[in-house]
Amino acid sequence: MVVYGKEAPLQTLDEKSRRKILSHAGSLMMVEVQFDKGGVGAAHRHVHEQITYVAEGLFRFTIEGEEFTVQKGDSLYFPSNALHGCVCLESGKLIDIFNPQREDFLK
Amino acid sequence: MVVYGKEAPLQTLDEKSRRKILSHAGSLMMVEVQFDKGGVGAAHRHVHEQITYVAEGLFRFTIEGEEFTVQKGDSLYFPSNALHGCVCLESGKLIDIFNPQREDFLK
Repeated sequence: MVVYGKEAPLQTLDEKSRRKILSHAGSLMMVEVQFDKGGVGAAHRHVHEQITYVAEGLFRFTIEGEEFTVQKGDSLYFPSNALHGCVCLESGKLIDIFNPQREDFLK
Repeated sequence: MVVYGKEAPLQTLDEKSRRKILSHAGSLMMVEVQFDKGGVGAAHRHVHEQITYVAEGLFRFTIEGEEFTVQKGDSLYFPSNALHGCVCLESGKLIDIFNPQREDFLK
């Protein structure tokens, strides 16, 4: 399953963030999230394991109360049910990968 | 598990490609592969499911005999045991995600 980024629908999440669902099949799903400076990914948890790759920008993540400032080329792993969220410090793009797929994103 | 890209060891694969192991834990592993123009990821198969994100550059992939030309922002899914390989048409960087982890990369 190949997804061309330019063809993937851009979903508005809020005034400062947007999402594109990229390749997803089997037990894996990839999602691109674009953030403007000041955008917030509110702290949340889900059973799915996740790795996030910072494709562009500067972000401060909080994982179970611990803070990490990450930039392009950095990556983070979130265990199942770990509380995590982020603030965008410089506009950018995150690539999130989930196992299993986030079926809630496909509804 | 946070991996800062600049701190991750750069492993030489051949004259035209290099690899960094990024976040890996639980059932997920993320790996960055840098290719110079003309670099080749020889066709291979593995039981692990995989999604690849094109972070930079231009690549031609072959999946089970079918060809796809992909650029920055595109992604591809490889089912378990699917034969796949790539040729780098313009220097760039791939972000590979595997489920389960590629234990062979950690030896």
